[in-house]
Amino acid sequence: MEKNELLYEGKAKRIYATEETGVLWVEYKDSATAFNGVKKSEITGKGILNNEISSLIFANLQEMGVESHFIRKISETEQLVKQVSIIPLEVVTRNVIAGSLAKRLGIEEGTPLKKPVVEFYYKNDELGDPIITEDHIEILGIASLEEVNLLRKKAIKINEVLLELFLQLGIRLVDFKLEFGKDANGEILLADEISPDTCRLWDVKTNEKLDKDVFRRDLGDLKTVYTEILNRLKGVTAHV
Amino acid sequence: MEKNELLYEGKAKRIYATEETGVLWVEYKDSATAFNGVKKSEITGKGILNNEISSLIFANLQEMGVESHFIRKISETEQLVKQVSIIPLEVVTRNVIAGSLAKRLGIEEGTPLKKPVVEFYYKNDELGDPIITEDHIEILGIASLEEVNLLRKKAIKINEVLLELFLQLGIRLVDFKLEFGKDANGEILLADEISPDTCRLWDVKTNEKLDKDVFRRDLGDLKTVYTEILNRLKGVTAHV
Ligand SMILES: Nc1ncnc2c1ncn2[C@@H]1O[C@H](COP(=O)(O)OP(=O)(O)O)[C@@H](O)[C@H]1O
Ligand SMILES: Nc1ncnc2c1ncn2[C@@H]1O[C@H](COP(=O)(O)OP(=O)(O)O)[C@@H](O)[C@H]1O
Ligand SMILES: [Mg+2]
Ligand SMILES: [Mg+2]
Repeated sequence: MEKNELLYEGKAKRIYATEETGVLWVEYKDSATAFNGVKKSEITGKGILNNEISSLIFANLQEMGVESHFIRKISETEQLVKQVSIIPLEVVTRNVIAGSLAKRLGIEEGTPLKKPVVEFYYKNDELGDPIITEDHIEILGIASLEEVNLLRKKAIKINEVLLELFLQLGIRLVDFKLEFGKDANGEILLADEISPDTCRLWDVKTNEKLDKDVFRRDLGDLKTVYTEILNRLKGVTAHV
Repeated sequence: MEKNELLYEGKAKRIYATEETGVLWVEYKDSATAFNGVKKSEITGKGILNNEISSLIFANLQEMGVESHFIRKISETEQLVKQVSIIPLEVVTRNVIAGSLAKRLGIEEGTPLKKPVVEFYYKNDELGDPIITEDHIEILGIASLEEVNLLRKKAIKINEVLLELFLQLGIRLVDFKLEFGKDANGEILLADEISPDTCRLWDVKTNEKLDKDVFRRDLGDLKTVYTEILNRLKGVTAHV
């Protein structure tokens, strides 16, 4: 497989075409960003960590019957994925109240939810990724009500798999963000990445934050906690 | 009926007890506020206008079969209402994209919606009245899913009545905010006020704004446009 032209450079990854139609070459960057790009840093080795973590998680999901864009990891910082047309929604699933939901509802971070909650944010940097309702999704023409229900169902299923996976690592999956896209057949596929950049992961015993909040809130060294996640994942997913 | 102790002073009204259990005495103030109280002004005569407008609208709704807390107007600035326990939701119904929805979706103000959209905001000044989903309402314990569906149904019905009423006045009902509460029997009743403070009202022919946006955006004289609304309403609802 060969890397062709750069199609898109985002905050965390570069996306290249390949000589094969429908296959993209993803390169994970060393950039850390938060608050819609207002806080930025280059952290050498972050790309390696997230590429490896995301690859292990997508492989695990695959094993558990969750299809995705993931094809395979091809280098320390690179992977091949199926090209999709991204649905511009950040699909957030929460098991515990934290972050923007704690602020929105005035409820203490760490409060467990009786059942998982799925939220939709409009993936639009200019607008600051606002939370939107199913009616808004329809108005924007982003997805039909049927598709929204499917996204919700997929998110809940993925949550079940990931809750279990992380629990085996001694980690509480507090919340996470997914992106989905449509492949050439119009099939909705899980895409993008799943990493400590896109999840809140708390140590079950110490409540220590092992995710991007360490960077957002200056709580410690990002590389140390991402490495901790990778090491725990390697222990459990060695058979993959 | 006698006015007893002041129970609550809000941004736009004072609520007093009366000697009759379950009956409140509402006094409309001359205060205009916007942006969660950040912008403020005293506008002599505003209380008279809103008390009269809201009374006419609630009487019209009553006639059209929409029950509410409204009992009767008792003076230029005062009315009697049934006491309810307010559900802390601002129930917003929209026919045309404007205000915060235009900002949220990045769609031009004035774009008509194919069908009315109902949104829920958490009535909480400290949190800035954030938009919330039905799941959030359940988490907050504010209302059950069944009650939320009832609020939605009531809002849509009230929208139908008000769309028609305002159209007779040559006015386009762009959007409006409702509050509901539970009476002593647990019945959900429309409460609070319906006035140019709580609606977006655009002249059908000129598109002139005849509502609080005149104050919010410094577009003209609030008293002049509220008087215009009252005069048009008086013409159509004279029989009430
Ligand atoms: N399989 C895929 N096909 C096409 N685009 C994808 C796929 N997976 C992820 N993307 C998109 O590629 C970009 C990834 O780069 P990233 O740095 O995360 O961007 P952003 O700053 O927009 O979040 C995102 O816009 C993401 O939606
Ligand atoms: N029938 C009613 N019974 C009890 N409370 C009511 C009723 N109608 C309105 N209210 C409440 O009374 C207050 C009205 O005053 P207002 O000045 O509009 O307050 P706010 O600044 O909180 O919006 C609001 O809190 C409103 O929810
Ligand atoms: Mg991204
Ligand atoms: Mg009010």
